[in-house]
Amino acid sequence: MTLPLNPAMAATFPPPVMEARRWLQGATFPPDRPLINVSQAAPVESPPLGLRQALAEAALNDPQAHLYGPVLGMPALRAEIAAQWSLAYGGSIAPEQVAITQGCNQAFTAVMSTLAGAGDAVILPTPWYFNHKMWLDMQGVTTTPLATGPGLIPDADQTAALITPATKAIVLVSPNNPGGVEYPAETLLAFLTLARAHGIALIVDETYRDFDSRTGAPHALFTDPDWTDTLIHLYSFSKAYRLTGHRVGAVVASTGRLAEVEKFLDTVAICPSQLGQIGALWGMRNLAQWVAGERAEILARRTAMHSGFHALPDWRLLGCGAYFAYVEHPFAMDSDVLAKRLVQEAGLLMLPGTMFQPAGSAEGKRQLRIAFANVDAAGIGQLFARLAALRL
Amino acid sequence: MTLPLNPAMAATFPPPVMEARRWLQGATFPPDRPLINVSQAAPVESPPLGLRQALAEAALNDPQAHLYGPVLGMPALRAEIAAQWSLAYGGSIAPEQVAITQGCNQAFTAVMSTLAGAGDAVILPTPWYFNHKMWLDMQGVTTTPLATGPGLIPDADQTAALITPATKAIVLVSPNNPGGVEYPAETLLAFLTLARAHGIALIVDETYRDFDSRTGAPHALFTDPDWTDTLIHLYSFSKAYRLTGHRVGAVVASTGRLAEVEKFLDTVAICPSQLGQIGALWGMRNLAQWVAGERAEILARRTAMHSGFHALPDWRLLGCGAYFAYVEHPFAMDSDVLAKRLVQEAGLLMLPGTMFQPAGSAEGKRQLRIAFANVDAAGIGQLFARLAALRL
Repeated sequence: MTLPLNPAMAATFPPPVMEARRWLQGATFPPDRPLINVSQAAPVESPPLGLRQALAEAALNDPQAHLYGPVLGMPALRAEIAAQWSLAYGGSIAPEQVAITQGCNQAFTAVMSTLAGAGDAVILPTPWYFNHKMWLDMQGVTTTPLATGPGLIPDADQTAALITPATKAIVLVSPNNPGGVEYPAETLLAFLTLARAHGIALIVDETYRDFDSRTGAPHALFTDPDWTDTLIHLYSFSKAYRLTGHRVGAVVASTGRLAEVEKFLDTVAICPSQLGQIGALWGMRNLAQWVAGERAEILARRTAMHSGFHALPDWRLLGCGAYFAYVEHPFAMDSDVLAKRLVQEAGLLMLPGTMFQPAGSAEGKRQLRIAFANVDAAGIGQLFARLAALRL
Repeated sequence: MTLPLNPAMAATFPPPVMEARRWLQGATFPPDRPLINVSQAAPVESPPLGLRQALAEAALNDPQAHLYGPVLGMPALRAEIAAQWSLAYGGSIAPEQVAITQGCNQAFTAVMSTLAGAGDAVILPTPWYFNHKMWLDMQGVTTTPLATGPGLIPDADQTAALITPATKAIVLVSPNNPGGVEYPAETLLAFLTLARAHGIALIVDETYRDFDSRTGAPHALFTDPDWTDTLIHLYSFSKAYRLTGHRVGAVVASTGRLAEVEKFLDTVAICPSQLGQIGALWGMRNLAQWVAGERAEILARRTAMHSGFHALPDWRLLGCGAYFAYVEHPFAMDSDVLAKRLVQEAGLLMLPGTMFQPAGSAEGKRQLRIAFANVDAAGIGQLFARLAALRL
């Protein structure tokens, strides 16, 4: 007899990044054409020495680093986020309105579990971030896809028609994963107004905020004195300070919402990693200048991506920013087939658009996501040389 | 307009340990009667120096410590668990049958989400571990309570009558939290047979295994060559190596089950903390003798708990072992009222049985859990002096 399998979990697709890693098995990469892995949005170098020293010092000498902490996170980190966010967004955010999570994926699942259960619906613009879709699938929540068209910017007016009594939230990711595009402030404001009018949540995931090409606050949502009635903000410490392996993210929401989030986090996490939180706090207090340099480097790589695709007129650059270029390929084959051939024939690992679009979507079959942030100028040159030489 | 709230989350009770911490607010503890906190099963001292040095060394010099790792955990740690468990249980466990999680709570939620969704049912012996109940509640899964009676040992024959087509799993915790009792090997075997006959999962959580008073394997479940068809095993690194703040746990199950678990972990965690895993692996390779000393100390404290309650005949010790004494109090008031008065009037923080029993349970109102493992001999002496002096 076979053990029970939750049908909602069975219907959830497997982790795309892990699937892509399996394509590498058996592939060979000659020394003059090493693998260029642009599949995952992840820094590949260590955090700066000062941060590593702070972690080492805490591991050795801070007993608190090894003990359970509060479910909603370290008070000093919550306070630091509240202070820096209030300043950056020109709004008022209190420490009690901040919770720390084991990474931003967990922030999303914790928040969503307080909003929507089986039978409810949530609106995701397409292309979407696959882990958002996976959570909704495994929870039996219906995903309502919101087509974005040229520019990959969702439109609030078009969205209104998708909202039903089952709809509990709209999720926006800006700068977007996988699309790379930065949502205009007026787009975010229009969605806040729309969500508020319908009494549903607006979740804004700003994991890639630190690499936005614009200066100043990317939106004015927190300047609304009533932001807590609609807005839920998500953030990740993984990219800014290269802390992916430590799993630290954050939620900003009303204290009432966080009391519900606390139930989820207590049950799934008990508390975030203490060392991860110590690292995030050290970074917030000491690495502003360093992050500015990282941002400049990533913006330079973004420019290189633009130039590269400009010189490849058969390809279409749909969006480019933060860690990602999202492109339309020129080949007469589906992107999931193409992605595997790119590993074998060009030493390039990137994710097909089919992983970011509803099943069967014609768009997804023509699209690819390139997570270029880890690849230096020489690597980007290589990437384009290989794409230009492709004969499929 | 108020934002939507998932009714299943609204119906989930708040985190008991956080609630108990709030009872401390406003309480005063005179210097000659400091707080004795026996509310949470958590080491309060740091891991041994060698482990802290290993963490510090990795934080400084191991780039891998800061990067994403595989969703199912570090291969070396999975292999070490497979090897040590195979030896300890006299069975055959492969590295591919081991997954690492961000703590054992996450191991439970990951496994359970592959087995049961809204409308399904899961059997938990009472008193139960509250986070298990919370997860089932927030997922809309019905909890079927299994009364244990004197000795707190569940009976497989009685359980058979509780199994319906909706039942997907039976969960056993041994040594038990909160009951402290060690389940006999024949009890676990009877439950394996029962679960197998009904095609449902048997989840065995052995978080406190390292402090079992018995020598040798606590059960023979892994010697069954077909264990993967029914058994799912959970473990925590928090207690053995004092790694609570690092969040490292493990699941042992069939590779097919772990492929489903991987979907959940990718979505909720992406990967476990790399430093936590480095610490757990270092502990497994270097701390066997040190853990033996910890176990001896906790067993001595357990003996002191037995003696202490023997000298308080109005109290009834229902179970005692691992980190916990589970007791019946002699007062004419409900345990949740009593627990708050113990803070104010005796400087003792412990959790009421109401947190471990179904709502309205008469038993829960007479019971308390004492997590004694952090309290040394002098503290245990103090604890009993205060209990003996109580006049309520």
